[in-house]
Amino acid sequence: MILDRINSPKDIKGLSIQELETLASEIRNLLMHKMSISGGHFGPNLGVVEATIALHYVFNSPVDKIVFDVSHQSYTHKILTGRKDAYLNEEPKWDVSGFTQPRESEHDFFSVGHTSTSISLACGLARGRDLKGGKENIIAFIGDGSLSGGLAFEGLNVGGEMRKNLIVIVNDNDMAIAEPHGALTQYLRKLRDTKGEASDNYFKSLGYQYSYVEDGNDISSLIEAFNKVKNTPVPVVVHIRTVKGKGYTIAEDNREGWHFHAPFDIETGQKKGQGVGENYGFTVRDFLLKKMEKDPSICVITPAVPMSCGFNADIRQKLGNQFIDVGIAEEHAVTMAAGVAKNGGKPIVVSLSTFYQRAYDQILHDLCINKCPATLLIRNGSIWGDTDETHIGFFDIAMMSNIPNLVFLAPTNCEEYLAMLDWSIEQNEHPVAIRIPCNKLVHTDKPVEKDYSKLNKSSVTQKGEKVALFALGDFYQMGEEFATAIEEEFGFTPTVVNPRYITGVDSELLETLKKDHNLVITLEDGIIEGGYGQKIAAYYSTFTMRVVNLGLKKEFTDGIKAAQLLERNGLTKENIIDIIKTICF
Amino acid sequence: MILDRINSPKDIKGLSIQELETLASEIRNLLMHKMSISGGHFGPNLGVVEATIALHYVFNSPVDKIVFDVSHQSYTHKILTGRKDAYLNEEPKWDVSGFTQPRESEHDFFSVGHTSTSISLACGLARGRDLKGGKENIIAFIGDGSLSGGLAFEGLNVGGEMRKNLIVIVNDNDMAIAEPHGALTQYLRKLRDTKGEASDNYFKSLGYQYSYVEDGNDISSLIEAFNKVKNTPVPVVVHIRTVKGKGYTIAEDNREGWHFHAPFDIETGQKKGQGVGENYGFTVRDFLLKKMEKDPSICVITPAVPMSCGFNADIRQKLGNQFIDVGIAEEHAVTMAAGVAKNGGKPIVVSLSTFYQRAYDQILHDLCINKCPATLLIRNGSIWGDTDETHIGFFDIAMMSNIPNLVFLAPTNCEEYLAMLDWSIEQNEHPVAIRIPCNKLVHTDKPVEKDYSKLNKSSVTQKGEKVALFALGDFYQMGEEFATAIEEEFGFTPTVVNPRYITGVDSELLETLKKDHNLVITLEDGIIEGGYGQKIAAYYSTFTMRVVNLGLKKEFTDGIKAAQLLERNGLTKENIIDIIKTICF
Repeated sequence: MILDRINSPKDIKGLSIQELETLASEIRNLLMHKMSISGGHFGPNLGVVEATIALHYVFNSPVDKIVFDVSHQSYTHKILTGRKDAYLNEEPKWDVSGFTQPRESEHDFFSVGHTSTSISLACGLARGRDLKGGKENIIAFIGDGSLSGGLAFEGLNVGGEMRKNLIVIVNDNDMAIAEPHGALTQYLRKLRDTKGEASDNYFKSLGYQYSYVEDGNDISSLIEAFNKVKNTPVPVVVHIRTVKGKGYTIAEDNREGWHFHAPFDIETGQKKGQGVGENYGFTVRDFLLKKMEKDPSICVITPAVPMSCGFNADIRQKLGNQFIDVGIAEEHAVTMAAGVAKNGGKPIVVSLSTFYQRAYDQILHDLCINKCPATLLIRNGSIWGDTDETHIGFFDIAMMSNIPNLVFLAPTNCEEYLAMLDWSIEQNEHPVAIRIPCNKLVHTDKPVEKDYSKLNKSSVTQKGEKVALFALGDFYQMGEEFATAIEEEFGFTPTVVNPRYITGVDSELLETLKKDHNLVITLEDGIIEGGYGQKIAAYYSTFTMRVVNLGLKKEFTDGIKAAQLLERNGLTKENIIDIIKTICF
Repeated sequence: MILDRINSPKDIKGLSIQELETLASEIRNLLMHKMSISGGHFGPNLGVVEATIALHYVFNSPVDKIVFDVSHQSYTHKILTGRKDAYLNEEPKWDVSGFTQPRESEHDFFSVGHTSTSISLACGLARGRDLKGGKENIIAFIGDGSLSGGLAFEGLNVGGEMRKNLIVIVNDNDMAIAEPHGALTQYLRKLRDTKGEASDNYFKSLGYQYSYVEDGNDISSLIEAFNKVKNTPVPVVVHIRTVKGKGYTIAEDNREGWHFHAPFDIETGQKKGQGVGENYGFTVRDFLLKKMEKDPSICVITPAVPMSCGFNADIRQKLGNQFIDVGIAEEHAVTMAAGVAKNGGKPIVVSLSTFYQRAYDQILHDLCINKCPATLLIRNGSIWGDTDETHIGFFDIAMMSNIPNLVFLAPTNCEEYLAMLDWSIEQNEHPVAIRIPCNKLVHTDKPVEKDYSKLNKSSVTQKGEKVALFALGDFYQMGEEFATAIEEEFGFTPTVVNPRYITGVDSELLETLKKDHNLVITLEDGIIEGGYGQKIAAYYSTFTMRVVNLGLKKEFTDGIKAAQLLERNGLTKENIIDIIKTICF
């Protein structure tokens, strides 16, 4: 095995093309094997094995600096830069992050998980270099799907004006997570069809020299192209055509399904283990499909994550005008929704908590100042969602609950969620955000409220005394468990409240509680600071009521699972009992 | 006067070209006269008188829908759509908003003040139209300066794929507020130089039909161009070349100075009234210039608002590599700063509170996860800043103080501000944001702390008893006044605290206060919810300390002056006295 000898990029410098090709084959097999055990970003990584080898062959990392966009395609880079043991590990776990991570290696410059940042980061590295008189190459490696993000354009636009060394590798596999969207995608297709010769070159219009590599999985073509631009004194784009999932036919044939894949059987491609069964994503999709059939003014907008709510390719096709994937473009998704609402449509934006962070101003300025009745569905705003520090969904409560005019709802079960969604679609007064529960799907046989127009009205689900638990959204079931534990320990029945609204408190209820309660405990699935519980603490701040806010500490956690986060943040029965013992007795 | 007969767009439909030209001249004179009295966005409005007349002549507003980007150039539109009285008013005030405002007219679709939103909003209006089977024209009117914003690209990219009626008018006056930046600007220049014939057409690459109007201040050319694209079934760009400040030589010759202008003498162009004198913008600039001369690794980055800290054209030129205006591109500015910091530079980003809203994710994901030591200077985060609902700076505390790893500082006077800035530039551990005070510049002769590395350490500036006032940032002087009033009224000395850090509380101090205080009052120049005071309220929520949070209610206010906001939100001596009477006695 050539790979046995490779512990840093310098170990590949002396290899022949044939040896590099053998190495690529070894790495591809290793990646397939490891991901069949541990899962991972299959398609993106198999597509760029050769390009990554060529980059490290031509450039001198870490003096020359490579920034991987999103960085979910950096597995080969990690293997070549001293971290191959993580990929050789046969256990179903990962010893390295799925993204670049400066804590792991001097070859990783940023912890990155969001798309479209690489060119701007590279512009910054380049300017840093120029300020100190350096000469190194700065390389941004970005997929075609990421180019639709506004930040990628901003980076290209500024980089194109700097007239300094800046090498942008456009890794074009004609895919985002799903098929890519936007006019630029169509233009890239023209470039591929003409082997880079199509007129009206987008990259040239932005000041870049441009070259095209027809086979971006051919090491010698790549080395030749990279050598040509090495040490260039002006900004260049090298457009390479790669195959997502290259080398594994099943993945090449179903590129969306194999963007990320759970552990699988290599022979058959079948996923190991159980399917997910009933979940909120599919449930909401089926509900929406029925509504959309009856009401052609309803329109689902997603910034490149249609599958986050189960809108697969067939369904998307069928929905026609009523479904629009705007590509990776969260800002646009929200602002466009404001426009749809203003012209009589009923827009529903579907994305993830961590990605809505890119649309803060669009939510505030475009949607909420204008009070446009759009619905924002928020997935993975939870400790049960993604765990990578770049993808954790702990911040949306603090981010969105303090924006005026927004009605931010936290359903506690499936029926309530659908009722809130239904209300939101039918009303014309408010921009509404709904935090989709993220733990396992819960049904209720109790009736749920249909009308949420009386804002900030909480629901008392168990009337008790002394202690009131305000258990928000998908922490509601935890609140019920805590209530049972309290009753068992102390012999009294605490009050349990489903707050329902994150954007404000139910002052009438809070006043009532003053009579026969002396402790309120708030539970929320997000950071405490700036969140829901602090609104209650502030409400009672001039009264004798004691308030304990439970939720997450304001910190970036990386790879920490839900159970551990609950423990770490005192979200346990034991801690609740202790709190009550300390404060009430 | 033709203008006498114009009360709605239909009144101009029957006019001849010559009459339209006379009307343009009348409107231009009216605008000049009114802005000489009341101030306003001078250059942008004088540049588009003809284009606006031509739009309303050709299209049928409000059935056809025109969305003005930023909408600071909508004065002629307002005059033509029933609001001319506001411009005829000789008093030095404005009876209409300086931006489009749906509350004023059915011809205004959105309250807009941020740039680069128009194409996405138009895409939404177009999709709303298509969902209900409408046929109207949707027009986005966007300046060349706004095209550098990522959202404008995202809108173009999605609009170019929709293959439906969508008309984008690019109003090219070769300026942002200052000179425009980015490679696209250089490309637009090529297009102008070739009368639209340059190769590698940016707009065509994104799926648009393209046409060019050499004289965008010539009504008949504009009418011809607009008529050609009216009812187009595909997306089109009409690129018109206009002159910023057209018709007023002084403004044409100094386009940056006359983007916005205070009341002035029409004969001389001289500003009426006093200059601003010493202010924080100039002070920080002079401080930075000295530091930058000594340390070539310091680099100022601004997203198109260099003058917000007094970096005029001469200074920008002189700073060379150490100054970069990235164009209107807040996201890029912050992400690029992360890159500069990572490669040994010391980046300082200069922008306004309301515009940092567009970089929430870049601050969180690119800067703070990576703990890049960049400095963000925040102007106008204050009731003393802009008052338009689209520009109020009330949200940055809630937005930024809850982001992990960020050190968010609130200086209370000039010396402290410069000390904080100096510390931030010299340290290598933290991303730092500094909220530049926004009331009149205050000096202190007391020594100020030089080292802010001990995070969240507040400063007790007056040691007292019973009541502690935590007066944040530019509300500090108000805190001192309140303290004096308390002493006069009640005869005891309250404690006064300068919190200094917004991102966390000084728990040691808060513990100490428990001994001899029973009321803490927090004062902050921003909304209370999600803000600094609520962190203190939450800290004391299980103790007997009473906490009153004063600041702003969570709402969008429009055109409300500081004095009125203070009154409305109980930030008065009388209210403080009442609070203490109620709670302490």
